[in-house]
Amino acid sequence: MVDVTRSLPDLESLSLKEMVAQMIVVRASGYLFDHQIQYPAWEPPAATLKYLLQELGIGGVILMGGSAGELALRSQQLQDWAKVPLLIAADIEEGVGQRFAGATWFPPPMAIGAVASTNITQAQYYAEQMGAIIAQEALAIGINWVLAPVVDVNNNPDNPVINVRALGELPEIVSQLASAFIKGAQKYPVLTTAKHFPGHGDTATDSHLDLPVLPHTPPRLARVELPPFVEAIARGVDAIMSAHLLIPAWDEQRPATLSDLVLTELLRKCLKFEGLIVTDALVMGAIANRYGSNEAPVMAVEAGADILLMPVDPEGAIQAVCDAVAAGRLSQERIQASVERIWKAKRKVLGQRDAGEAENTAEAFNPSSTPQNSLHQLAQPIALNTAAEILQDSQIIGGSLPLITEPFDGIRKLRNLIVVDDVLTCDYLGRHTPAVALPRQMGYELQIFDRHTPLTGEDVGYPATERPTLLQLFIRGNPFRGSAGLMPVADYYFKKLLKTGELQALVVYGSPYVLQQFLPDLPRNTPYVFSYGQMPQAQAIALDVLFSKSAPVNAVSVFL
Amino acid sequence: MVDVTRSLPDLESLSLKEMVAQMIVVRASGYLFDHQIQYPAWEPPAATLKYLLQELGIGGVILMGGSAGELALRSQQLQDWAKVPLLIAADIEEGVGQRFAGATWFPPPMAIGAVASTNITQAQYYAEQMGAIIAQEALAIGINWVLAPVVDVNNNPDNPVINVRALGELPEIVSQLASAFIKGAQKYPVLTTAKHFPGHGDTATDSHLDLPVLPHTPPRLARVELPPFVEAIARGVDAIMSAHLLIPAWDEQRPATLSDLVLTELLRKCLKFEGLIVTDALVMGAIANRYGSNEAPVMAVEAGADILLMPVDPEGAIQAVCDAVAAGRLSQERIQASVERIWKAKRKVLGQRDAGEAENTAEAFNPSSTPQNSLHQLAQPIALNTAAEILQDSQIIGGSLPLITEPFDGIRKLRNLIVVDDVLTCDYLGRHTPAVALPRQMGYELQIFDRHTPLTGEDVGYPATERPTLLQLFIRGNPFRGSAGLMPVADYYFKKLLKTGELQALVVYGSPYVLQQFLPDLPRNTPYVFSYGQMPQAQAIALDVLFSKSAPVNAVSVFL
Repeated sequence: MVDVTRSLPDLESLSLKEMVAQMIVVRASGYLFDHQIQYPAWEPPAATLKYLLQELGIGGVILMGGSAGELALRSQQLQDWAKVPLLIAADIEEGVGQRFAGATWFPPPMAIGAVASTNITQAQYYAEQMGAIIAQEALAIGINWVLAPVVDVNNNPDNPVINVRALGELPEIVSQLASAFIKGAQKYPVLTTAKHFPGHGDTATDSHLDLPVLPHTPPRLARVELPPFVEAIARGVDAIMSAHLLIPAWDEQRPATLSDLVLTELLRKCLKFEGLIVTDALVMGAIANRYGSNEAPVMAVEAGADILLMPVDPEGAIQAVCDAVAAGRLSQERIQASVERIWKAKRKVLGQRDAGEAENTAEAFNPSSTPQNSLHQLAQPIALNTAAEILQDSQIIGGSLPLITEPFDGIRKLRNLIVVDDVLTCDYLGRHTPAVALPRQMGYELQIFDRHTPLTGEDVGYPATERPTLLQLFIRGNPFRGSAGLMPVADYYFKKLLKTGELQALVVYGSPYVLQQFLPDLPRNTPYVFSYGQMPQAQAIALDVLFSKSAPVNAVSVFL
Repeated sequence: MVDVTRSLPDLESLSLKEMVAQMIVVRASGYLFDHQIQYPAWEPPAATLKYLLQELGIGGVILMGGSAGELALRSQQLQDWAKVPLLIAADIEEGVGQRFAGATWFPPPMAIGAVASTNITQAQYYAEQMGAIIAQEALAIGINWVLAPVVDVNNNPDNPVINVRALGELPEIVSQLASAFIKGAQKYPVLTTAKHFPGHGDTATDSHLDLPVLPHTPPRLARVELPPFVEAIARGVDAIMSAHLLIPAWDEQRPATLSDLVLTELLRKCLKFEGLIVTDALVMGAIANRYGSNEAPVMAVEAGADILLMPVDPEGAIQAVCDAVAAGRLSQERIQASVERIWKAKRKVLGQRDAGEAENTAEAFNPSSTPQNSLHQLAQPIALNTAAEILQDSQIIGGSLPLITEPFDGIRKLRNLIVVDDVLTCDYLGRHTPAVALPRQMGYELQIFDRHTPLTGEDVGYPATERPTLLQLFIRGNPFRGSAGLMPVADYYFKKLLKTGELQALVVYGSPYVLQQFLPDLPRNTPYVFSYGQMPQAQAIALDVLFSKSAPVNAVSVFL
């Protein structure tokens, strides 16, 4: 847990410029040194970052990259630089370990949604546990703002953009699980965030690239998209993140992020949300490419946003908002109202109560502990076990299990063929991870196919000799879109192995929509396992079922 | 810098078993959590490790894996567990950043040897700087024992086992550079280690696999292998690591690690080395497979070793050595003499002077600083610049530079073909590293070939269409041996690209012996760059020369 003992300054002591700076959250690398920065276009070097936090008094940062241990040091460093105690945010929808190695990494939320389809009580328990563990681990390394839960309803299975990031495909399920997640997180003094308002689950365009349109009528939106947000608000969610979506039913002109009708009229007034309204990243294509880099922040504040996430030019954004106040386009009161909400949020994470607040559900926490001490709160057995249980309960298996492999005879070598999007960036595959190491111990030779593997026309390097093959697919992106560019390769191998009779077994990690592509053509007895997770723990659990003698065996024996 | 304020207990207060435990150094993962352990056969989980350090009172650990930031926390954790302040060692021959991401990563020592061939003064300056920076950064994250410099003379270029880990191919150069390295490191209270005694530079077998034989006569050994050790001893090196080598000229029976004739008669008595004699890892094939796992440690102590590095079974090794004392095979005084040397070494790293020691060249250091503070001492500009200068000065270039590439016309796509040993384990390639990112910005499409890429007979996935290709090879292992299994693939591509005229340029990272394989067949005007480094900084410097307009251009213009 990071040491932030300073108090907040009196709001009245801040200049307009200082107040506006508090409304900005900038992106920073979670790594400690400039030479480790992976996205130089977005992640400023230390000197710039220090200037932003110390001189300009930027209000918060969002971190990506680095291990959990490093991040404990990094967040302390950033707090030390900051003029005012920072909000430190991270996109840890699947646990702190999803972004920061060493902490607990949960499967994607839809795994809990899958459990809910048969046992809603169990699923709620998992969601609450997941919320609590994420909050605890986040806090342990200095993250005080959890950018989760995703409460979008993934109600377009034919075109899942939000995909496994969603808690389900039905509004009631998403509402109940999001509520449980928030309840769990509230055991610790961190901020939670429902996103992406008013609902990103049924769009055809990825807003990282362009502006999607949600063509539905108000009644349908009220029936499907809004309920989880209503529930999250009732449950006391601290922040709501806007979507970069155009919803003509409510505002024909402006995307939700920049829409007064959506953020103020709908969210603030109709739904009575009193917490922080935060934009999604303003550098994203849907906003950055359409509105000026300094005009978009002004429009977002006009619309009702309290926090401007990742504006293209933070200093320019501050100036533009100040200019808009000077020009009478924005009122000083509007700014002050946002900063008051920010102060309330900061008081919560600092453990300082508002005068008006009688109750605080957050447990007391000890701000004087050090990064060393915080490590005792990461990846505890209960956390790892919870992740394992969710993986286990949401796993899908079929065919004749377990797979019985003949011991390697020195001639007919077994093959472990992994198809993965990008080996260069995937952190869940290494020589020690189960999907690689376990088959190796059993005599399988490893082959990996990723987007950088040289292709030769139709013949994608397929060896002439027949070899019993375990096919493992790590494809999680939307299988109907560009983000899953390796689906044709996976499909090619799948069909070819089927034809030659070499396909021993199929393991799919990540997306049930990918599994659904292959199931219809899979012979009834061919063993298969699907796991929502891609991390080493998911691999271990999946392969344990595939190979273990303790797994259910049906009458048909598996022949290599 | 890690906080170790405890004093050493009086030697007299230790039982025999406690003394023997102090002679053991065990391997541990540098990662903070059990679920991150990458080599479960060698790296015990936390509970076992705690038992070894706290209950048995093991004397030291050798760490691998994790980032520099994590390691600062990890070494503090281990020191907190330990009954007696620990020696914490690491194989950081190429800088702390070689093993622990974030710290400075130098090119392999032979880069400095290459500089020495034209400018010995400059090379000595680099070696001294490198020694000082490694010592400072090691100490900053709690490593107090640097397992460097390698002082083996790599005098068999036809069969380089030590390869680029050596400081050169001539004894005088290695002596001078090793001496400078040690001098630099002595500015900080860390231990240095000359290895691998009596010289591993001219062997045909990798001792990780089996026991190599050094067939030379004593005069030749005295002329080539020994001088760097003599120099290191004169310079005050703290430790010398034995080699798992059989040297019939001195001992026909036992490898150096287990040889009384080599360790005691030669090293201790003839060469008058009074520091720590440490074995190379006892789990290595040359020892573990030939001598019993508990017999080897006893033999090593008999031979004169003070520290037993990575015995197969630490607790068994302690018991075996105690039993040997009880049986009269080893004397209590022999044990005590070793522990006295260990105490002297520990006093040095703890900043506690011996009664008999008047002088101590080490600068004072502040043991009360925290992991946060230590970060200011990592990857400083002077360190990164020194690494850059060594890379620059040792780089080899040729052909018509710079390479002028035509802007991408939308049809004839350029290709960036990378051949690398194992993408799963290489930490120097990622989507942001220059060898990948820079060509991508220039319109090159990336293809990667590694040991897991599916092969189809002779046709290794070579595309039918002709495409101007930048060929980048990351092959560092001995090119004449199994450790460089991709040389045939690299050779295949090289020849095929030559034949079709597609080879734009060749960049070789890592080993000059690999470069030498290709140079004879490379057309005179084809640009090429060789860098001793493989890390991102080396890639940036190499590609800057390849593409930059500031690079020397000869009369022949380069055509795609």
